[in-house]
Amino acid sequence: MAKTTAVEKKLAGLADIVIAAANKKRDPAIKIPVRSLSNVRFNERKGIIEMGSNTQDRTFFNVAMAKKFMQTMLVADALSELQKAELTTSLREIYYRTKHTMADSHENTFDTQDESDPIIEDLEVGLEALREELHVRAENGGTVIGPLVLEDDGDRVDCAKLGKGGYSVPSIVEEEYVSIKKCTADFVLLVEKGTQWNRLAEDKFWKKYNCVLMTGNGQPPRGIRRLTRRLHEEKKLPVYVLVDNDPWGYYIYSVVKQGSINLAFESKRMAIPDAKFIGLSSADPERYGLPRNVGIKLNDKDISRAKELMNYPWFQKKEWQGEVKRMLSSGLKYELDALANKDFQYLTKTYLPKKLKDKDWLD
Amino acid sequence: MAKTTAVEKKLAGLADIVIAAANKKRDPAIKIPVRSLSNVRFNERKGIIEMGSNTQDRTFFNVAMAKKFMQTMLVADALSELQKAELTTSLREIYYRTKHTMADSHENTFDTQDESDPIIEDLEVGLEALREELHVRAENGGTVIGPLVLEDDGDRVDCAKLGKGGYSVPSIVEEEYVSIKKCTADFVLLVEKGTQWNRLAEDKFWKKYNCVLMTGNGQPPRGIRRLTRRLHEEKKLPVYVLVDNDPWGYYIYSVVKQGSINLAFESKRMAIPDAKFIGLSSADPERYGLPRNVGIKLNDKDISRAKELMNYPWFQKKEWQGEVKRMLSSGLKYELDALANKDFQYLTKTYLPKKLKDKDWLD
Repeated sequence: MAKTTAVEKKLAGLADIVIAAANKKRDPAIKIPVRSLSNVRFNERKGIIEMGSNTQDRTFFNVAMAKKFMQTMLVADALSELQKAELTTSLREIYYRTKHTMADSHENTFDTQDESDPIIEDLEVGLEALREELHVRAENGGTVIGPLVLEDDGDRVDCAKLGKGGYSVPSIVEEEYVSIKKCTADFVLLVEKGTQWNRLAEDKFWKKYNCVLMTGNGQPPRGIRRLTRRLHEEKKLPVYVLVDNDPWGYYIYSVVKQGSINLAFESKRMAIPDAKFIGLSSADPERYGLPRNVGIKLNDKDISRAKELMNYPWFQKKEWQGEVKRMLSSGLKYELDALANKDFQYLTKTYLPKKLKDKDWLD
Repeated sequence: MAKTTAVEKKLAGLADIVIAAANKKRDPAIKIPVRSLSNVRFNERKGIIEMGSNTQDRTFFNVAMAKKFMQTMLVADALSELQKAELTTSLREIYYRTKHTMADSHENTFDTQDESDPIIEDLEVGLEALREELHVRAENGGTVIGPLVLEDDGDRVDCAKLGKGGYSVPSIVEEEYVSIKKCTADFVLLVEKGTQWNRLAEDKFWKKYNCVLMTGNGQPPRGIRRLTRRLHEEKKLPVYVLVDNDPWGYYIYSVVKQGSINLAFESKRMAIPDAKFIGLSSADPERYGLPRNVGIKLNDKDISRAKELMNYPWFQKKEWQGEVKRMLSSGLKYELDALANKDFQYLTKTYLPKKLKDKDWLD
């Protein structure tokens, strides 16, 4: 059995609150930071979306809160079990683990996962522990390849020697699970779509341009974001983000850079305020001669989402306002895949090399 | 430049048909096998869903077919380009590559990908070449770990030395891309869900039970199916499939085993008629003492899908009829995740060991 972890101590602290209150015949109460929009702000100096300091007491002697209090303790207990046994698990399995019928009743501790998930988030925020530190994971998501050596479970994983396939990135890449042994790359390229990542892997782009190639097959999952952030922080690598030219691509970039409103409390461990947007820019179709017929007409949802983005404090830079406006006035969005219209290797051989050479990115 | 491949010759054969017809001033015509339900049957002896022999002529001098004929030639040309340049690409990029405005018109060769995808399938069937052999891929999907050594792009990838993360399985795992160098495993365990795969990877189940652990995070993508099939065929490994106990889990198993109706022409290269269903069986909740409250009430869609399955010729075995009926009469479905109700490692330490020991599976 390993020594007691910091997280385990925090979880045990919750039980101590209950015991202390019981001894004093007082109502046990725990403080949970408020996770609503009203308690989220953009920290301009740090360049991240972060949580404010409002908290709410969760007490036991309160009809409206008693069940939630009990649920909080059950989840904390399951999380504690994970720490002690040095195991990781999923949100869904925690729900199942903590679900049972309460003694002398027909009532379940939890009826659906919608009840247990927010409690895990409460504990993340309340205990200032990332979900990953609480040993809660999702399935593997995304892939990495490039001059990067990791250590995973005692194995030395050389991501430059995994063919075109690459290393399947686990959901938890914290130091205790995955350690960065060596990285000689000059930068990280985080590609939205798996198929373009495959193009770059097949063409050994990472070798020629000495970079780490990362993809999350869409909105990057936490493991990919966290590994990118660690490479940025620990290895001082610049991070370039390559996404479709549409509001969803812009948004993916902004989440990588500033974090998200929903998970504002995690920005300080997940966001990469220095990340650059390398494309597709709404200026690219003209610059690279993409025909209009490979653009896709913006629909109403695209247009309203784009306008929404323009109002976010973190999209206020002149360049960004221009970027989004240009897309709106063209009436078209472009997928990364559309570069294949020029030629199958246009991304690898023309587009990215020119972007990098011209330092043509947005901040 | 590599030597002309067999597939390249087949593609060139299409052009030859057009040239020969032009020389004879005849209407060029190509034979495309019919891909509708009427031309699909279950081959009981082989245990796979396969296509019949009906074909349809696609001709050029026919108003209804002329555009499709032209599109077929454009796609064949793009596929030929891939062969010559030894590149792979996605369905979507082929659409973009072949899309252009036709000379002296405002008409596009293709308006949406819905027009180019079926043509690629036509060519797969018509030329008897797997999509992978035509160099058409999707993004990486799924992960493998275990005593298996692959060669990918000149790199020796030892799947027993990739920590808990594993090798990210590319969409194309044909011999020319990924070669199976060594495999000392006793069987393959294909797990529907990534989170249970993670459980087994974390617990090093593959080491103790000497197996290859595979997941496709849901319905297994083609790369996972094909690699599993290759391990079964080339290394004579039994294949066990572990899915949720619901109609969708049964269906995933049946696709791995017999192939699917939609892609019937691929069964002979993808299906694994000997694959076994190891769980979750509708008999398991009772046998393993899972409480009813971790079951999920079957909804109308589940029930009608289950009845549909019972009518498929490949679900006619007595044991399968009993399996599905038992689920229907219990009124409940169970996820793999529900095993965590017993304890976080129940899958690894109790459920699967007992299943394997008792040879408790369905064929």
